[in-house]
Amino acid sequence: MSNRIYFDNAATTALDKEVLDAMLPYLTTHFGNPSSIYSYGRETRLAVENARKSVAKILGVHPAEIFFTSGGTESTNTAITAAVRDLGCTRIITSPLEHHATMHCTEAFHKRGEVRLEHVNILPNGHIDLEDLETRLSCTTDKTLITLMHANNEIGNLLNVEKVGILAQQYGAIFHCDTVQTVGHYPLDLKKLKVHFTSAAGHKFHGPKGIGVLYVNEDIKIHPFIEGGAQERNMRAGTENIYGIVGFAKALEMAMANYETERKHIQAIKDYMIQRLENEFEGVRFNGDTRGESLYTVLSVSFPETEKTEMLLFNLDIHHICVSGGSACSSGASLGSHVINSLYPADKIVPVRFSFSKYNTIQEADQVIDTLKALL
Amino acid sequence: MSNRIYFDNAATTALDKEVLDAMLPYLTTHFGNPSSIYSYGRETRLAVENARKSVAKILGVHPAEIFFTSGGTESTNTAITAAVRDLGCTRIITSPLEHHATMHCTEAFHKRGEVRLEHVNILPNGHIDLEDLETRLSCTTDKTLITLMHANNEIGNLLNVEKVGILAQQYGAIFHCDTVQTVGHYPLDLKKLKVHFTSAAGHKFHGPKGIGVLYVNEDIKIHPFIEGGAQERNMRAGTENIYGIVGFAKALEMAMANYETERKHIQAIKDYMIQRLENEFEGVRFNGDTRGESLYTVLSVSFPETEKTEMLLFNLDIHHICVSGGSACSSGASLGSHVINSLYPADKIVPVRFSFSKYNTIQEADQVIDTLKALL
Repeated sequence: MSNRIYFDNAATTALDKEVLDAMLPYLTTHFGNPSSIYSYGRETRLAVENARKSVAKILGVHPAEIFFTSGGTESTNTAITAAVRDLGCTRIITSPLEHHATMHCTEAFHKRGEVRLEHVNILPNGHIDLEDLETRLSCTTDKTLITLMHANNEIGNLLNVEKVGILAQQYGAIFHCDTVQTVGHYPLDLKKLKVHFTSAAGHKFHGPKGIGVLYVNEDIKIHPFIEGGAQERNMRAGTENIYGIVGFAKALEMAMANYETERKHIQAIKDYMIQRLENEFEGVRFNGDTRGESLYTVLSVSFPETEKTEMLLFNLDIHHICVSGGSACSSGASLGSHVINSLYPADKIVPVRFSFSKYNTIQEADQVIDTLKALL
Repeated sequence: MSNRIYFDNAATTALDKEVLDAMLPYLTTHFGNPSSIYSYGRETRLAVENARKSVAKILGVHPAEIFFTSGGTESTNTAITAAVRDLGCTRIITSPLEHHATMHCTEAFHKRGEVRLEHVNILPNGHIDLEDLETRLSCTTDKTLITLMHANNEIGNLLNVEKVGILAQQYGAIFHCDTVQTVGHYPLDLKKLKVHFTSAAGHKFHGPKGIGVLYVNEDIKIHPFIEGGAQERNMRAGTENIYGIVGFAKALEMAMANYETERKHIQAIKDYMIQRLENEFEGVRFNGDTRGESLYTVLSVSFPETEKTEMLLFNLDIHHICVSGGSACSSGASLGSHVINSLYPADKIVPVRFSFSKYNTIQEADQVIDTLKALL
């Protein structure tokens, strides 16, 4: 469908042609097992280690701190599990607005009685209440894991990672930051942030699906989440997904090489959408700190619940416009978004998330607005 | 390298051209998130569900019993974790010849004090001592997980899965069978075998790396190993690796469509190698039940340890021949194979595993034998 408008890039992005080209040799001739001892395996091992070096350099860390996983969710599960099992955390502080990977993994530890689970307060604009976080950190000496996302995937709010890192250090807490929506979208210098773990997923920045990264600060020592062979320096077992790894690195290199230009381009689309929505639609509300500390890629809008807005996503789909209500991670979707429900529990609204990539245009934004006007 | 001889197909296999062709649309235009509600996501969702149906049909089970994972190791970790955490197993019976995924995962549960770990006796030919297994099952009523591999990845021995399944049923045990070396190589009818879990990996039968399958018998209910979104019917969180899933199914379809022909072709290469090795080399021994219940794809050979055999793998590599000592999963490899060490602890031997695919030829076998003769 050439006339399809894809405004759901926070769910997943198109694989870049150059990324696929970088992957193809490893999908054809270079298939050797990187853990083999012969030269054929060493070719692919070299590819894996070069990818690791490249990712590490871009994130400002050592290659030995980068581990390849099957995706952001596995990375987050690994970090949380290690914090509890290997680092002795008996309390987890998280927020009600986290991704399901964090939410359900922390809940599982809580249900099994392995940790006490606390949710930090959320300010009316959707930001984490850092004062409340500090109060919670200061009130007990229990070893604590703080797990908070850098950017909220639904409303786009950005966390002050630096500040949380300083608090974590001050109170001796472990800090996992889910950076799935920001790796590949912002220049990150992880060494400067006082963070112990971060999670990333290739398919959020025009890389492949099924591949992710876990950053583990060298100061901490953990055991593997997936046990088995000695891959990833004994930290993540299973034959390496070589093309995924190569694709992840290539996509990250491309994203960072063109970061300034692409950011400006995407921010302009978001700003334009905000302006037209505000001027031309009655009762529209922007969820989260849209104009403030917010992802340039995400715009979450609430329309008042009416007969016409109820079927809005469905009708946009008919007009070949791809957007989402909440995140893509809950199929069925009729339960609504836990983020929006948590922030605006009493409101009768229909939330729509528009999320943009470098491939989107102002013309597409016009077309979406015009379609919305026709529908509402 | 056109003159490279790849005899390490038990480590990993070349991706089939047709499999890559089936994957490519999902690496280019069809990139929508299968969990999205719009039609673009439904296209990829359909691809995932069709792949699941196809895999289920070939394995003789219901689609609802098939879950896609990141590979064999994750599948095995999921099964073992679920057996302990969700199904109440307090004892694990396994063998000293299992893959590292099983070995290290079961050891981790043992070390954390969550299970009692027992190793079943091994017969001199490398087969599992089923009498000993029954004795162990009958001596206590502790809820037990039996985890044994269908085919040993190093020596090729095949387990009598049917018999173990009957024992498991008789004694109320849970049975996980690591079928990583047999899915795609044998017609399996899992419903007829009394097995609760099986693991598979796409890259062992000319499918992609980074994708696996876990079969979970519908009679048992388990929780996810990787927590998060509602993907895989709430059983395996994380955005679906669509091209991996499509590639897994396509590779399995192709493997089973041509099974008879390919099996004959590969078995002939194995038989030919056995014959020439036996006739032309002094002191050669075949590890495991090579001529009996054994994978047609694997031939494990021991050469007496001499000055010449010590550097054998290295010298074969120089001659562009890819084989391995043990499995590929322990990089470094200088520790030797836990399987060979366990079976022949006192012997001074150099083990070499030859493993074949449909792409190998008798001519290649001749070339390998001639090179071996020149080297030894």
